[in-house]
Amino acid sequence: MAYDTNNVFAKILRGELPCIKVYEDEHTLAFMDIMPAVEGHTLVIPKEPGETIFDISPEAAAATMRTTQIVAAAVKKALGVPGIMLAQLNGAASGQTIPHVHFHILPRKLGADLSFHGKAMVKPEVLEPVAAKIRAAL
Amino acid sequence: MAYDTNNVFAKILRGELPCIKVYEDEHTLAFMDIMPAVEGHTLVIPKEPGETIFDISPEAAAATMRTTQIVAAAVKKALGVPGIMLAQLNGAASGQTIPHVHFHILPRKLGADLSFHGKAMVKPEVLEPVAAKIRAAL
Repeated sequence: MAYDTNNVFAKILRGELPCIKVYEDEHTLAFMDIMPAVEGHTLVIPKEPGETIFDISPEAAAATMRTTQIVAAAVKKALGVPGIMLAQLNGAASGQTIPHVHFHILPRKLGADLSFHGKAMVKPEVLEPVAAKIRAAL
Repeated sequence: MAYDTNNVFAKILRGELPCIKVYEDEHTLAFMDIMPAVEGHTLVIPKEPGETIFDISPEAAAATMRTTQIVAAAVKKALGVPGIMLAQLNGAASGQTIPHVHFHILPRKLGADLSFHGKAMVKPEVLEPVAAKIRAAL
């Protein structure tokens, strides 16, 4: 999809909107989410424009991951939490609200179950056709 | 934390347990989650041993991200879904169950809201002290 150059993160990158910055390098920027899901909720974005992970270069994705690794370690230490969840949403259907690719760093404590897993094991014969479709799409 | 060489993903990497593979390269492996949260739930792991994102090298993290980008695009195309959520859990407190770092690729459709964001904007004066702690921990 065409990149919206007037999205909030594009404006932050151009210095037209403020942010509470925690880290910046040549390729990435990290700052506090102003609508935090939990205390310490931090975002990492590539400077390369792109709406989703599918719209940026492998180099930009790798750089964003490296910064996320660094900043997430700092968030964990700073907040003194036992867990860190990383999340990256692509498309409104996944809950993405700002159309510039971003990684969420979310401090987690026990008891806040996000139930990523289903309740039951699924048989290989059910999974295999799905895997075949994915392999075919690679 | 010391890496448990007998965890399920370590066994899959050594070929001691089967997996439904969708992709493999020198540094990473992608396969179907056998307890899928949704249809198409796929996992990407680095071959480098490490319990969490904080225990692997920047190179392994970047390689895992690159593979995730490739495989997630295939999952999106294969499943025909409008959204893809990437998640990576660190520590039992975040919901991590297998102690080998892994990225979840989750197909998403509208209506399955995971509410990553809080309900209200938080003021900079509340966020700034948190940011200061994170910067100090970098």
